[in-house]
Amino acid sequence: MQSLKQISTLSNRSEVQFLPLMAQEDHQSPPYLGQVLVIRPPPVFSVHEQYISSKFQILKAYESPLPTHDFLQTYAQSVKVVLCSGGSPITADVLHDLPALQLVVSSTTGVNHIDMAECRRREIRVTNTGDLFSDDVADGAVGLLIDVMRRISAGDRFVRGGRWPAISEYPLGSKLGGKRVGIVGLGNIGSSVATRLEAMGCIVSYTSRQKKNSTHYTFYPNVLQLASNSDALIICCALTNDTRHMINNTVLRALGKTGVIVNVARGAIIDEVELVECLVEGEVGGAGLDVFEKEPKVPNELFELDNVVLSSHSTACTRECFYDAAQTVVANLEAFFMSKPLLTPVS
Amino acid sequence: MQSLKQISTLSNRSEVQFLPLMAQEDHQSPPYLGQVLVIRPPPVFSVHEQYISSKFQILKAYESPLPTHDFLQTYAQSVKVVLCSGGSPITADVLHDLPALQLVVSSTTGVNHIDMAECRRREIRVTNTGDLFSDDVADGAVGLLIDVMRRISAGDRFVRGGRWPAISEYPLGSKLGGKRVGIVGLGNIGSSVATRLEAMGCIVSYTSRQKKNSTHYTFYPNVLQLASNSDALIICCALTNDTRHMINNTVLRALGKTGVIVNVARGAIIDEVELVECLVEGEVGGAGLDVFEKEPKVPNELFELDNVVLSSHSTACTRECFYDAAQTVVANLEAFFMSKPLLTPVS
Repeated sequence: MQSLKQISTLSNRSEVQFLPLMAQEDHQSPPYLGQVLVIRPPPVFSVHEQYISSKFQILKAYESPLPTHDFLQTYAQSVKVVLCSGGSPITADVLHDLPALQLVVSSTTGVNHIDMAECRRREIRVTNTGDLFSDDVADGAVGLLIDVMRRISAGDRFVRGGRWPAISEYPLGSKLGGKRVGIVGLGNIGSSVATRLEAMGCIVSYTSRQKKNSTHYTFYPNVLQLASNSDALIICCALTNDTRHMINNTVLRALGKTGVIVNVARGAIIDEVELVECLVEGEVGGAGLDVFEKEPKVPNELFELDNVVLSSHSTACTRECFYDAAQTVVANLEAFFMSKPLLTPVS
Repeated sequence: MQSLKQISTLSNRSEVQFLPLMAQEDHQSPPYLGQVLVIRPPPVFSVHEQYISSKFQILKAYESPLPTHDFLQTYAQSVKVVLCSGGSPITADVLHDLPALQLVVSSTTGVNHIDMAECRRREIRVTNTGDLFSDDVADGAVGLLIDVMRRISAGDRFVRGGRWPAISEYPLGSKLGGKRVGIVGLGNIGSSVATRLEAMGCIVSYTSRQKKNSTHYTFYPNVLQLASNSDALIICCALTNDTRHMINNTVLRALGKTGVIVNVARGAIIDEVELVECLVEGEVGGAGLDVFEKEPKVPNELFELDNVVLSSHSTACTRECFYDAAQTVVANLEAFFMSKPLLTPVS
């Protein structure tokens, strides 16, 4: 079995084309290692289905004419493992329908779509993809920040709309160098964002559950103080009961009329209604949003704004990351069925 | 007079709002230091006109009903100084019309719009804005690269077009980490781009007139070899007779079907007809273009492509940069009229 380190180095080989991983044509291959339930196909599964399906028997709830609840009850006694992502949440109800469940494998980093408390109570183990996605999400966050401050997507619309010859001077953007950027949640993604911002001359500070001794960035004990002292905020923390709607009207007004907010974490960390109000009323300067409260629904008011860049929860979506994530999913499933230690368990 | 170092630090003060610089309300202020011809208003002049006009008598050819040639001939004997940018080229014809000219002040870094050979012959001095714009242009270049590779502007169109709910899986982007990025021209801008790319885990190499001993990046002696060994090319060099159409069909095909090209230098460094052909035929993977051969004209074929990001020669256009550039323009003009050393002469 490949180690996570071995897997993650694959994406550094630029000659690899990252086509979908293919089933090995090995006539000596053993029969399926075990059965894996998929309620709705995670994107990583869709891209690499042939590879994953060559190793495990996939029980596809989404191809059954039965309602999900009925389907789950039909297979209730046999399902030990479920593969999921944000689009197929593992709620208390789903868990209730699966009394024999032993493992939840998520093809994502965040596990807010899994009822972790119930999993703990029933001793159901959970795996994610570790920090495979961190660098790509950080690149996406920085891309969104540059895009909003330097008006790249709006400028692309301006040129494609044929407006350049008529209006020779496109509105000025805002310089990144020297700007104070506050990072909400200095984990793997937040730290990767910070490294990139420092290279652009930004002044980085952060807030998190507790001050980190391993960094020289200025710490603020809460997000309101961070916003008050920042020209831009980048949300990189997990969605929990503590962080839900943490970014509200008060925080956004502290960020201010020229402040920019970027969210690459989870939509519900921001009170979306209040964010839309602040953007429409000019109480905040701009936003780069990869995530939303009710995906794939995006508030229509945002479609009219040139100081907003919208993305479809895709900052983690690169061919290289999906390739690595598929291998991590398979490695965790193999480990489970072979009674070996899981590769990336969520504690 | 402020030194360039003092000026450049202004943009690091995030509390500065970078509103247009205002004429100082100083009733003791001396009369105009001298006369400055403006044939067409450079963008920096348009934004900070009141400030610049408070110090110098501006002779505005663009407000005269006379054709430019006639206007210039009318003022031929008095004009010692002209302020220009790419939109108001100082050609041999213009220079011929201005026999008393002693100084050309450009509000840009590049001076390819000035007939430098004729200026040298006539001992007309030329100033640019030094490297004020380097960091902003580098941010713009990196923004365009991330945008193309991670499909940010195309994704913004996808979401604004209301397509996300119907097509849940947006096409995967390409990871930046581990990619080999070749920089064409490792001057101030190229070096700033390199610093940013390294923070994102890219492998940087370059070509330039000669190998630089001060850097650890791999050097290739020509752009074809660089393209053959790169996943992306970023054009950061000056436009000269040597670099005109340096990026042609052969170089683009060496970059290849998944390769990305970014141009933040000058449009004519790329053979635009051949680039458009390569993009339309899929011979090159994508492009982020801030500059074009016949600005503000952009080839219509590009408007249809989702793997292209278009920008209106605006990677240098931030409020902070324009603020600094206006001060550099004024400082050079003051130095000239007070017979002091020019701040940022072009050698």
